[in-house]
Amino acid sequence: MNIDRLIEKIIDKKNPSVMGLDPKLELIPEFIKKSAIKEYGKTPKAAEEALFNFNKGLIDACGEYVPAIKPQSAYYEMYGVAGMKALLRTIEYAKKQGLCVILDVKRNDIGTTAEAYATAYLGKTDFFGEKISVMPADAVTVNPYLGTDGIKPFTNYTDSFLFALVKTSNKSGGELQDIKMENGKPYYYAVADMVKKWGEPSIGKYGYNAVGAVVGATYPEELNALREYMPNTFFLIPGYGAQGGAAKDICGAFDQNGIGAIVNSSRGIMYAYEKKKDPENYMLYAREAVLQMRDEFSDITLL
Amino acid sequence: MNIDRLIEKIIDKKNPSVMGLDPKLELIPEFIKKSAIKEYGKTPKAAEEALFNFNKGLIDACGEYVPAIKPQSAYYEMYGVAGMKALLRTIEYAKKQGLCVILDVKRNDIGTTAEAYATAYLGKTDFFGEKISVMPADAVTVNPYLGTDGIKPFTNYTDSFLFALVKTSNKSGGELQDIKMENGKPYYYAVADMVKKWGEPSIGKYGYNAVGAVVGATYPEELNALREYMPNTFFLIPGYGAQGGAAKDICGAFDQNGIGAIVNSSRGIMYAYEKKKDPENYMLYAREAVLQMRDEFSDITLL
Repeated sequence: MNIDRLIEKIIDKKNPSVMGLDPKLELIPEFIKKSAIKEYGKTPKAAEEALFNFNKGLIDACGEYVPAIKPQSAYYEMYGVAGMKALLRTIEYAKKQGLCVILDVKRNDIGTTAEAYATAYLGKTDFFGEKISVMPADAVTVNPYLGTDGIKPFTNYTDSFLFALVKTSNKSGGELQDIKMENGKPYYYAVADMVKKWGEPSIGKYGYNAVGAVVGATYPEELNALREYMPNTFFLIPGYGAQGGAAKDICGAFDQNGIGAIVNSSRGIMYAYEKKKDPENYMLYAREAVLQMRDEFSDITLL
Repeated sequence: MNIDRLIEKIIDKKNPSVMGLDPKLELIPEFIKKSAIKEYGKTPKAAEEALFNFNKGLIDACGEYVPAIKPQSAYYEMYGVAGMKALLRTIEYAKKQGLCVILDVKRNDIGTTAEAYATAYLGKTDFFGEKISVMPADAVTVNPYLGTDGIKPFTNYTDSFLFALVKTSNKSGGELQDIKMENGKPYYYAVADMVKKWGEPSIGKYGYNAVGAVVGATYPEELNALREYMPNTFFLIPGYGAQGGAAKDICGAFDQNGIGAIVNSSRGIMYAYEKKKDPENYMLYAREAVLQMRDEFSDITLL
């Protein structure tokens, strides 16, 4: 495992942010849907086309400026087989444009089953002797609740990296994550300890290992404390923008070289056209939003 | 939400066990694969056929005796789009035979994303105005780490039920689940408290609510204590058979009427043919294994 590839793309593009791709048909500009329906009728195939073409437009408009995309698997699973086809095409297209793909699946299971998940997203599946990457992401998110044997199988891939949930961005995240342990610390510190341990063997040349942590932008104090507690852990930070986190809330996540974290924005980029009421030009507004976000962070990180 | 439908099937078939369907091409009998390859070549379509036909054989052989199946999503995701097609066909076929489908996906996310997952597996997705069930399970497993707003969307479906991870069956499950809290109890009791709260509004006529708990067979003492602690929570119990749990380890999970839990066996049923070295007759051996398991439990539960 190795996370340097992501870090190098961040440095190269001077942008520590990742474009979330969480498409919903209802929010996809009409002209994209109309064209898909014209060709395929109101079918799942048309849905696949609309989902992919919307994503492709976002990648075309913004791919030059972001190091990575983060598709949220739920929004593809919601469209069943058609959605999975759109996800696969999105991943393949993004990789062709040189982007890292962090697939947000939050998978978790016992060892043998975790192996199957790791094969699905980071490895190759055996189809009658032929090995095929069925959903070739560069990284996945995982939920750590099952402990080491549920994480281990994901760490067997040389070029991949992971992000394990530590402190999530949502309002009710604290209900189970902030519970005080016997030692007085909140529970997510126990999770942080495991994440540190899992990552140790994979330390890269920038001082970060390949088992990153998901830490929400919406709890800045906790974010800063975790940064100090896990100096070699790369952070994936959701919650920026639509969920309420601002750039200033996140500045503590970066080291003196401006690296250490990647910040996600999904709705703020994908649906930037809504504020302008101009869906035809969604690509333009997405690019504007990406550049604005990049600039906010380059002021802070001096990347 | 309501879990009575599952309980009634358990009573009807006098069998509190569920057949796990976790197919791997390598372990599917040759004759099934040969026939799929003959028709479709060594293609993903042949994989879909082999996965589905293997499952269909198991449902045909055992469906009369089990109340439910539990497909483990990882084993389908591993085959990409072909796997998702096989999963959909398996779910639809099982439901046609009157079986409940508990889809083991262990999903977890923030509220808006959890809504997408709930739509995918329990609800209907909007495809250009037409509502379609893309993967119509009766129940899913969920991971509770994100708290209430990640669970709530799953509770909006009248006929569905859930199982939230509390204490898993795997060896390293205790690393994060058994950590002592300030109040001296292991952490999974905090999870149990949340699960109880989430379930409360959905209590059914047998005294169990629709937010069940996953509690492993491999920790019998903890299982008994949790049974007492959560008297209205239905248990989904993995870890029987291949993972080492025996019927006697689980007897405490049932109430005086013999209900309160459903025990999963996957490998012990699906691959029962291996011990006999007779893959051609895998259906027969699967049925034998199902009946043996049923009898072990009916001795205990007097169902």
